[in-house]
Amino acid sequence: MTVAHENNTFESTIRQRIDNKTKPLGALGRLEELALQIALIQQSETPVLTNPHLIIFAADHGIAAEGVSAYPAGVTYGMVNNFMAGGAAINVFCRQNGLKLLVCDVGVVGTFDANTSGNETLVKYKIRPGTRNMRHEPAMTLDECAAAMDAGRTLVNGVCYRDCNIVGFGEMGIGNTSAAALLMHRLTGLPLEQCVGRGTGVDDAGLARKLAVLQDVAHKYTDVTDPMAVLATMGGLEIAAIVGGMLQAAENNLIILVDGFIATSALLVAHALNPDVLRNCIFCHQSDEAGHWLMLEFLHARPLLNLNLRLGEGTGCALAYPLVQAAVGMLTDMATMDSL
Amino acid sequence: MTVAHENNTFESTIRQRIDNKTKPLGALGRLEELALQIALIQQSETPVLTNPHLIIFAADHGIAAEGVSAYPAGVTYGMVNNFMAGGAAINVFCRQNGLKLLVCDVGVVGTFDANTSGNETLVKYKIRPGTRNMRHEPAMTLDECAAAMDAGRTLVNGVCYRDCNIVGFGEMGIGNTSAAALLMHRLTGLPLEQCVGRGTGVDDAGLARKLAVLQDVAHKYTDVTDPMAVLATMGGLEIAAIVGGMLQAAENNLIILVDGFIATSALLVAHALNPDVLRNCIFCHQSDEAGHWLMLEFLHARPLLNLNLRLGEGTGCALAYPLVQAAVGMLTDMATMDSL
Repeated sequence: MTVAHENNTFESTIRQRIDNKTKPLGALGRLEELALQIALIQQSETPVLTNPHLIIFAADHGIAAEGVSAYPAGVTYGMVNNFMAGGAAINVFCRQNGLKLLVCDVGVVGTFDANTSGNETLVKYKIRPGTRNMRHEPAMTLDECAAAMDAGRTLVNGVCYRDCNIVGFGEMGIGNTSAAALLMHRLTGLPLEQCVGRGTGVDDAGLARKLAVLQDVAHKYTDVTDPMAVLATMGGLEIAAIVGGMLQAAENNLIILVDGFIATSALLVAHALNPDVLRNCIFCHQSDEAGHWLMLEFLHARPLLNLNLRLGEGTGCALAYPLVQAAVGMLTDMATMDSL
Repeated sequence: MTVAHENNTFESTIRQRIDNKTKPLGALGRLEELALQIALIQQSETPVLTNPHLIIFAADHGIAAEGVSAYPAGVTYGMVNNFMAGGAAINVFCRQNGLKLLVCDVGVVGTFDANTSGNETLVKYKIRPGTRNMRHEPAMTLDECAAAMDAGRTLVNGVCYRDCNIVGFGEMGIGNTSAAALLMHRLTGLPLEQCVGRGTGVDDAGLARKLAVLQDVAHKYTDVTDPMAVLATMGGLEIAAIVGGMLQAAENNLIILVDGFIATSALLVAHALNPDVLRNCIFCHQSDEAGHWLMLEFLHARPLLNLNLRLGEGTGCALAYPLVQAAVGMLTDMATMDSL
């Protein structure tokens, strides 16, 4: 009771502080809500953002063998090299907006040798080379899934040691909208048809094939409902790493930047394991992947951006980051009415 | 015909360049459209943004005497001092995102002495101390209106000399949502009820009073339909300056960042005078001021942000600028598929 009361008092203090800035009441809309949320996370009237990081987890998916993606599985490996060389969209956006990028291989098929590393840091934490094909057997054992989650926890603790207090999560893994759709279906109870979309861009025939394959998988594991079991059976190594990363970030009281369809599917799992994680989450954008807005609705989340993105990699986080800075800047750097 | 053909070829080249980036086709959504628009404006496959500026024009409004605003007219003067001291929202956002700020007094009631200037540049270009009360007489003479437009043209030419190729326009003027609503009503033909909103936050009674006053004004000048005459009769000095600034920016082929309700009302006038101005416009956000989405619809414009802002000052431009940078960065800095 005392804590709740103190929090209400603190919240009133922050609201007053915002209302007293040189602007009409409420005129900065969503940025005011964002500033309040960040102040509450940090329990500070003058919050700060320090050493922002974007962590991409990459892994392959056994289900890709079923032809559920518009791209061949080898693209995962190629894109990790692209991240290393600094040529992907997420590299461009992180450089522009001042986020540090870490790339972590938790399960890419293929070996990155010493020469692979380019401009960016590759963290090697491979649990296994891709998940198993969940149409035939669970994607991961519970141990593999827990190990992937540990990778996420470890990297988040690592950035915390470097005074990072805000982190976004990205992913790369051909086939991972299939895993995310199944997680969504099982954890929200929504019909699979509403969870499955075109991913990187399958055509109508591809979408029908993808849906049929995923219906097969969903029927095969009807009895799997425990969140950890759902994640191991139908998830992905990079998704599990993000789940662990988000849980650790919430425990360390970081601000969490939530990206699109895959990252939000990880949050559905994290939320099932610890509902309090939402307190630390900023929803960066609404993706064009069909099911994303329903995920956001399920979590009562309002995204900051809606730019018809469907790229992943954490690009929504990097693009929304300046808005987060603006919200903090409003709270800390604007003059007050009595100074007019 | 030849130019159109060449433009189509160039557009195809840009589209191919975007499609060949390391991402699924179309996966960067609105940023891809934005990159194409900027490439077409600059007729370059590798566009650049140089020395971005935000120019605020400030002026008072005679109509404020009718009690149409939630704030007293003196706030215009106070806020200009706040801009000078660096304490307003637009100062914070421009500093954060690297835009240079110019503030221009085209008609504030009150004199800014030599000691007023603080961190920012105040350009003194006062046409007269506020417009006349348009409930009784036209807000400006045609000559005054033309002089205010010249202020806008002069400042835009000034930033061009300093290699600026992208400019946003902001405004400050208690009472200016009243002027903007009347411009909107007369230039779009929409009923006044759909054009009038709460501005800085009038209550229900205030809104009814504002609407009644503006109906009076609209009836008084039923025969005024020529865009320049509409601007002079029912506009504002800062709005006229933005009209001139936008027209000059288009003539100089700058990228124009369009802010909210007031700035878009200026664009309605500029568009009526030169429809080609739209080619250079990026619509930064949809404001919460009631009529703004209808203005955007009238111009077939899709805004980048929708954050329930209703502050003006050019804040939407400064907040959207990183997205414009991201679109350009995508085009110029991302790797191509053949490099994978």
